[in-house]
Amino acid sequence: MMTHYFDWAATAIADPELLATAPYGNPSSKHAAGREAKAAYENARNRCALVLGVEPCHVYFTGCGTEANTIVLHSFLRRKLESGGTGAILYSAVEHSSVQENCHLLRHYGMDVREIAVEGDGRVSVATLEKAFAAGKPPALVTVMAVNNELGSVNDIAGLVSWIRAHSERPVHIHVDCVQALGKVPVAVKDWDVDSASFAAHKICGPRGVGILYLRKPLIPPYLGGGQEAGLRPGTENVAGALSFAAALEKYAAPEPCARYHAEAAARMARLRDGITSFDRARLLPASRVEGPAFSPYIIQASFDGIPGEVFARALDEKGFCISTGSACSATKVERPVLAAVGVGEKQRLEGVRLSQGYSTTTAAMDALLNAIGDVLKTL
Amino acid sequence: MMTHYFDWAATAIADPELLATAPYGNPSSKHAAGREAKAAYENARNRCALVLGVEPCHVYFTGCGTEANTIVLHSFLRRKLESGGTGAILYSAVEHSSVQENCHLLRHYGMDVREIAVEGDGRVSVATLEKAFAAGKPPALVTVMAVNNELGSVNDIAGLVSWIRAHSERPVHIHVDCVQALGKVPVAVKDWDVDSASFAAHKICGPRGVGILYLRKPLIPPYLGGGQEAGLRPGTENVAGALSFAAALEKYAAPEPCARYHAEAAARMARLRDGITSFDRARLLPASRVEGPAFSPYIIQASFDGIPGEVFARALDEKGFCISTGSACSATKVERPVLAAVGVGEKQRLEGVRLSQGYSTTTAAMDALLNAIGDVLKTL
Repeated sequence: MMTHYFDWAATAIADPELLATAPYGNPSSKHAAGREAKAAYENARNRCALVLGVEPCHVYFTGCGTEANTIVLHSFLRRKLESGGTGAILYSAVEHSSVQENCHLLRHYGMDVREIAVEGDGRVSVATLEKAFAAGKPPALVTVMAVNNELGSVNDIAGLVSWIRAHSERPVHIHVDCVQALGKVPVAVKDWDVDSASFAAHKICGPRGVGILYLRKPLIPPYLGGGQEAGLRPGTENVAGALSFAAALEKYAAPEPCARYHAEAAARMARLRDGITSFDRARLLPASRVEGPAFSPYIIQASFDGIPGEVFARALDEKGFCISTGSACSATKVERPVLAAVGVGEKQRLEGVRLSQGYSTTTAAMDALLNAIGDVLKTL
Repeated sequence: MMTHYFDWAATAIADPELLATAPYGNPSSKHAAGREAKAAYENARNRCALVLGVEPCHVYFTGCGTEANTIVLHSFLRRKLESGGTGAILYSAVEHSSVQENCHLLRHYGMDVREIAVEGDGRVSVATLEKAFAAGKPPALVTVMAVNNELGSVNDIAGLVSWIRAHSERPVHIHVDCVQALGKVPVAVKDWDVDSASFAAHKICGPRGVGILYLRKPLIPPYLGGGQEAGLRPGTENVAGALSFAAALEKYAAPEPCARYHAEAAARMARLRDGITSFDRARLLPASRVEGPAFSPYIIQASFDGIPGEVFARALDEKGFCISTGSACSATKVERPVLAAVGVGEKQRLEGVRLSQGYSTTTAAMDALLNAIGDVLKTL
C-alpha cells in the first residue's frame, strides 16, 4: 500500500540529495586533517549564516532543536544558581515541549516563571504580553515560538519584540523557537531584533542529529566539556551534519525557494481547507483560522464531530495516510494543552487531528487525502 | 602530499560502509511511517545492546559521548537541587574534559566533588581510591574512565568496582567513560557491575552526532523535552545515526573483531614503541609504560627532549603526518593536566605528543612515521 505522508510537522521526508560527506578529521585538531575538517565546518557555518541572514559567529551548531532551546533556558538557570535572582522567565502557553517542560523545571527550581496566554487564534498578542508583564517581576527572558507546531499559528515576532523592548527598563533576552518556521514562512531573526533562535535540520528534509542555535551575544554554558562551539555545545563537531544542514537551508529555506514553496503550499492548503470544511462534521481549530500571514500553510488542525482524534488518525492510517493528533514530541500524552490554551473544550480537544504537508506534497495526494477523509466519515 | 593519520584518539577515519539510511518517519509518531522508523530504531538499539552485552532497555541514544557523560553528572546536580545533599562525587584526575569540567561546575554549585588521584601509570588504584574515599563524605557517584585518551592507560574497572561496592554502606552510582575503550579493549559493563557508561560512534568509524548512554537504572533527567529516550535525551530520534552506530559496533567492537584488531594494533604499537625508544631524545610518558593489559595499543604518549610538543607536531604535520599534543577537546589549552596528574614535570609536559592509531593503520605507515620522526629529530 502506498503511504501518503501528512505529518511533515513531526519530521520532513528526508531529501537524500542533502546528505553531505565530510573530511574525516576532528575540527579541533590542529594538523592537516583537522584543518580540512575545520574549513568544511566553517564553510557550513558561513552558508547557514548567509541563508539565515546573520553573522557566522552567531551560529552555533547543536545536536537538535530541543537542545538549542534547552541551552538557552538552562543558561538562565545557571545564571540564577551563580548570582541569585535574575528576573522572571515568560513563555507562551503553546510552546513546544522542549521549552514548556524546561520552563516547568525552572519554576520547580524556584525561578519566577510565568506563562503568556495566547489569543483564540493561538498567537501571542500585545494584550496577552501586557498581562503577563503586569503579573509579576519584569522578565529577564521571554520565549515565544515563531510558528506553533500544532495549529500553524504564526506569531508577529517583530511586533511583539518591539513592544517588549519599549516596555522593558532592563535588557530582556528574547528567544524564538523557529523550528516550525524555518523554510516555511519568512524568518528574519536579525530584523526581528531577537537575541536567540532555534532551528532543526530534519524539519526541512535535512538529517537528524543537527540543529542550530542563533545567539546574538554569548550565554553562560549550562553544561561543559571540550569547549566546542565557544563552550556552548561541547562534543566533537558534526561536520557532515552541519554541511547537510547548510545544503537544506539553501535548497528550502533561502528566501526564493521558501517563497516559491510557500505559494505552492498555500494553494494546496486552500484546497485542503475547503475540502475539510465541506464535510458537515468538520471544524477547524481554531475556528477563527484565516489563511494568510497569521497561519502557516503547512499545518492545519481540525476536528470531526464525535470521532476521537486517535480513532480518526488510525482509520486514515489503515488507508495509507499518515496524520497525527498532535506533536510527535507529545505522542504519549492524552492531554492537548495547546488546544486548551486556545479555548477548545475538553471533548473537542480529544477530537483534534493535525494535517501537515511539505515541499513534495502534491495536489493529487491532497485530493486523495480528502477522498480518504470522506470515506472514513462514512464509516465512523 | 599523502596524509598519514595518527590521531585516531581524536576521531577515527569514518568508514563509509557504516553509513545507514533510515525510514523517514519520526519514531514517536503512531502511524505507519512512524512505526517503520520506530522498528528500525529499536532494531538499532537491540543490535547495539547485543554487542555491548546488555539489555536493550538499558541503551539510551544520545547526541555524543560528551552528552552521555553530561546527563549522568547533571542528573546528580538535579538530585541535589531537588533534595539537598546526596553524598559526594568522586572523579579520577585524568577524566575527559566533559567529565572534568562538569565536575568543576558541580563543585562550583556547592556539591562535594573530590578528585581521585592516579598512579604514575595514569591508572586509578585501590590505594588512590581508598584515599579519596577517606578524604570526606561517602560518594553517591564515582566516575572513572576505562581508557585514558592521552596516555592509553587502561583502568581495572572490575577490580575498582568490587572495592567500591565492598567499602560502601549505601548504593554508589559508578559511571565509566568508555569512549576510548569501545572497540579497542574488552568492554564488559555488565560484568564490571557499573551503573552507567558512555560511548561515541565516531571513535569507531561511525558518524558524528550519535552516542550511547548505558544506564542500569533510570536517572532523573537533567533537562526536559518531548520525553524521547525515556525522558533522558529529548529530541527527535536520530534513526540513521543509531543504525550506523549499530553497524560500527558489529564491525569493530564485537568481541571477535575487537580482539583481532587489538592483536594487529598491539603488533604495530610494539614496533612504534621500539622505534620511538631507539631515539636518544625520546621518552615514553609515563616512563613506566608496559605494553599489555594496562595500556591500550591504540594510544601512546611520548616526549622528545628539548622540542615543544606543538613544534614537533607541526614539523610532522609539514611532512604529512597528523599527530596531536593532547586531546582534541583540549586543543586550545596549553596546560596538560593529565600529564601533571601522572607526575610529569612542567618542561616535559610541554614536550608531550600523542600518537594514536586505528583499524586501518598499516605497518608501512608506522614505519613511515618512524622515518619522519627520525628526520624531524635531525632538524629540531
